[in-house]
Amino acid sequence: MKVNSSKKIYQGRILNLRVDEITLDNGRRTTREVVEYRGAVAIVPIIEDKILFVRQFRYPVGEELIEIPAGKIEEGEHPDDTAYRELIEETGYRAAELKLLSRFYTAPGYSTEELYLFLAPKLEPSEMSPDFDEIIEPVEIPMDEVYRMLKNDEFHDAKTILGLLWFFNFVKND
Amino acid sequence: MKVNSSKKIYQGRILNLRVDEITLDNGRRTTREVVEYRGAVAIVPIIEDKILFVRQFRYPVGEELIEIPAGKIEEGEHPDDTAYRELIEETGYRAAELKLLSRFYTAPGYSTEELYLFLAPKLEPSEMSPDFDEIIEPVEIPMDEVYRMLKNDEFHDAKTILGLLWFFNFVKND
Repeated sequence: MKVNSSKKIYQGRILNLRVDEITLDNGRRTTREVVEYRGAVAIVPIIEDKILFVRQFRYPVGEELIEIPAGKIEEGEHPDDTAYRELIEETGYRAAELKLLSRFYTAPGYSTEELYLFLAPKLEPSEMSPDFDEIIEPVEIPMDEVYRMLKNDEFHDAKTILGLLWFFNFVKND
Repeated sequence: MKVNSSKKIYQGRILNLRVDEITLDNGRRTTREVVEYRGAVAIVPIIEDKILFVRQFRYPVGEELIEIPAGKIEEGEHPDDTAYRELIEETGYRAAELKLLSRFYTAPGYSTEELYLFLAPKLEPSEMSPDFDEIIEPVEIPMDEVYRMLKNDEFHDAKTILGLLWFFNFVKND
């Protein structure tokens, strides 16, 4: 594969867009539209027998979603630090410790985003401070209710479903 | 929430980009960068005691990934039909039946993409026909090896990890 040209279309606040013209190994020329999105973290936060979520309106999909806390990695920031920071900002809880569960690409067909999924098995109360343009409400849901909602397909966010399945499969049953 | 203006930045082959200026319910004005990406499907295809994957180089992340078969829904196409079509195109297998497992948003913070996840519990041989600009190799992996790889975090694509976890949690153990 060979990159013939790369054109910056947009440089924005949370993402950039570029379009590259490439030649594949089979000799065919084509284009690739690439959303440049910095890495992100998501956290499965446990409060005894409950899981802590955030409820927020997601503008791109026009729906209010229940998600696990998450956020973008700032430039030069270590993903662990992002996870500690975002958890406090969005929920008002501080993680006593963090455990990396998984690393994956969110949408590798068109986005560079890589997501680090953490478990926060123990939380301590702290103080919430959401970003100026976020309206976020923390929600605690008992674990057996979370499992029922998961099985009924009542969560609609990929990282949330992935994080919960990982937790019930590899953490809780261990 | 109120939309003050909406600006089309880019209209492309697989995605569009727009930037909206909005006023939040708390009165604050801000912008939202939205990647418009049509719905997609992904399929967990079972061949007896193996799971069928596709291996392909993913340009945006610069890596070769092992993923479950997936593809974009064409305009006016029913997601079931997309799943039948993409499975044949990418793997050369026809699904004897399809079962919808889950529907979710891939990256609701910046993308409109909604993904339909299907199970194909039984396959029949047919003929492969990948898109002109895709180089795709089907890969069959025994189920216990898939489970080991999953637990070791050896898959790196969100929909693939989610689909496998869903399968092992809610389908195989049922």
